[in-house]
Amino acid sequence: MPKLPLPPGSTLGILGGGQLGRMLALAAARLGFDVAVLERDADSPAGRVAAHTIVGAYDDPAALEQLAALAQVVTFEFENVPAASVAKLEALGIEVAPGPEALAVAQDRIAEKQFLNASGAPTVAFSSADSAEEAVAAATEMGCPVLMKTRREGYDGKGQRWVEHAPDAAAAFKALGGAPVILEAPADFVRELSIIAARGRDGATAIYPLAENHHEGGILRRSLAPAQVGEDLAFQAEKIAARVLKGLNYVGVVGIELFELKDGTLLVNEIAPRVHNTGHWTMDGCEVDQFEQHIRAVAGWPLGPTAPHHRVEMLNLLGDEAEAWAKLAHEPETRIHLYGKRDPKPGRKMGHVNKLKAL
Amino acid sequence: MPKLPLPPGSTLGILGGGQLGRMLALAAARLGFDVAVLERDADSPAGRVAAHTIVGAYDDPAALEQLAALAQVVTFEFENVPAASVAKLEALGIEVAPGPEALAVAQDRIAEKQFLNASGAPTVAFSSADSAEEAVAAATEMGCPVLMKTRREGYDGKGQRWVEHAPDAAAAFKALGGAPVILEAPADFVRELSIIAARGRDGATAIYPLAENHHEGGILRRSLAPAQVGEDLAFQAEKIAARVLKGLNYVGVVGIELFELKDGTLLVNEIAPRVHNTGHWTMDGCEVDQFEQHIRAVAGWPLGPTAPHHRVEMLNLLGDEAEAWAKLAHEPETRIHLYGKRDPKPGRKMGHVNKLKAL
Repeated sequence: MPKLPLPPGSTLGILGGGQLGRMLALAAARLGFDVAVLERDADSPAGRVAAHTIVGAYDDPAALEQLAALAQVVTFEFENVPAASVAKLEALGIEVAPGPEALAVAQDRIAEKQFLNASGAPTVAFSSADSAEEAVAAATEMGCPVLMKTRREGYDGKGQRWVEHAPDAAAAFKALGGAPVILEAPADFVRELSIIAARGRDGATAIYPLAENHHEGGILRRSLAPAQVGEDLAFQAEKIAARVLKGLNYVGVVGIELFELKDGTLLVNEIAPRVHNTGHWTMDGCEVDQFEQHIRAVAGWPLGPTAPHHRVEMLNLLGDEAEAWAKLAHEPETRIHLYGKRDPKPGRKMGHVNKLKAL
Repeated sequence: MPKLPLPPGSTLGILGGGQLGRMLALAAARLGFDVAVLERDADSPAGRVAAHTIVGAYDDPAALEQLAALAQVVTFEFENVPAASVAKLEALGIEVAPGPEALAVAQDRIAEKQFLNASGAPTVAFSSADSAEEAVAAATEMGCPVLMKTRREGYDGKGQRWVEHAPDAAAAFKALGGAPVILEAPADFVRELSIIAARGRDGATAIYPLAENHHEGGILRRSLAPAQVGEDLAFQAEKIAARVLKGLNYVGVVGIELFELKDGTLLVNEIAPRVHNTGHWTMDGCEVDQFEQHIRAVAGWPLGPTAPHHRVEMLNLLGDEAEAWAKLAHEPETRIHLYGKRDPKPGRKMGHVNKLKAL
């Protein structure tokens, strides 16, 4: 196993070459690390700012061996890292963070909700179903409407649909591919919030102020942070974050999506074991942003401060919205972050801007 | 010639693979540019965070052609770029910024002082000498002590020596290699200050607050910014910066080193046509730092704001001082920047820290 804290000049591995990998790589470089990216695409947003790109699938044993030969610590930009890949890297003497426990929970919506409830982090009511018949039975028992999601995979609103009448659950189950699903009771929320938090290898935690988030068609459009919340709500959210981090023996940054209910209680929607789109505001709003924080944590460094110095409105630039860069560059309050993606498909996250306001 | 403003996704070329090139490359990546570094060393601090490294000397025609095939706009991290290289790139249709005028002035200490005085930016008295005899005559006429420097090259206190008695000027001339020299009257300064400023392709300027600088053995140890100065001094410095930028028809960031005299007037010590060590504080102290500002300027983007949000004490980490990274990482007010240099030679700039204080 590598000696930790990992000294500058060491190589840090990242699974995934997208924008999160890119912003992690830039943060790692600031701290003096070299970065090796494992990614299917030889020309990726992260690979273009990394010292090494290893071209391969995330479960390609030869690619994982190449990564292990370069890097001492490996992290990832997405939660669907195959468990076998993590096991293989660990067998090769590599520290992988966040660890297999966090991945197992984040990859299965049933395991995730069971873990959360067991940890004292409340969620909506839910059931699982492995067949169309079970889905109809579960929808009948829960009462409709219910939100059906595949247990695994799916992001940005993909792999889910609403069931308005219990008998329709059979068709929904088939439409989602016939794989095991979760059925979730609707959350009668007044606001979507999120909390970004980190835990170091020493068990210390660092928690950022809450963000208020606005989605459209399942895709994040806009975050406002620090969110305007009372002390009570902030305290609830921090308690949830602390329980999640401790319960998963977590190392790194986690993003926790929350529903604020009318009565002022919080439910956890989902947890992402990685840096998170709703934490991009920290790049221009906080002393140490979520990307450096994650690198610090996985490298075994002490965590940094999370104090904000600006209020931020973060706007995602989707598809051809990034073509407004010249106009955005004229706005003095707007900090621009572009990901170097070649192909501006509709809905694709091409960049984001942080609009700064006084705290 | 490339269409400006240069769109994200374009490739920006940087001559030089050191720490300034690295920090420029990281800033360019944030704005969505790819970077191509031209550098003698295949494994350089900047190359490791760039999409492309072209290995070659700065005057290697084949290397310059490779760079021109990739990049639409080229900048540099050091002032001693051969004029012929700039001419070659321009002949190949590349925009080079800052331009040949700025380089010519910055590469010759006599031309620099003549330009400054002609622009209404005062300097110490000086003479030139092309032989040992001329050196003795000049020292005699000026009166000793005088500071003898080679007209070209030299940085961080290299290529200069004090002459205490006029006859010693002959030996000093030979010790400096027998090349043309400048003799400078001593500046009876109370403080060393610097001002970092930028000019866009549209002629707009952006000026950062002054920094107060402390050198040891000719090497910058420490900058404090914004410096504690009265309105008068700030006004003088801004006027100097504006004259330098306009006089050189400048595009990019310039660093201007200043002497503050007892009577409250400012003299220009030297100008560096590039991002500058005394501007590293802007990385954690300002909304848009000097590196992004430089990229914006050379890419033909509008300049960004220079307002500070923290007071900063910047400390260079020289040689083995960077080995204190683990201790520094524990300090909540300290932001760490390490350059990925492999070999911590004494006096070598391995990184810097910005210690944040309230404004």
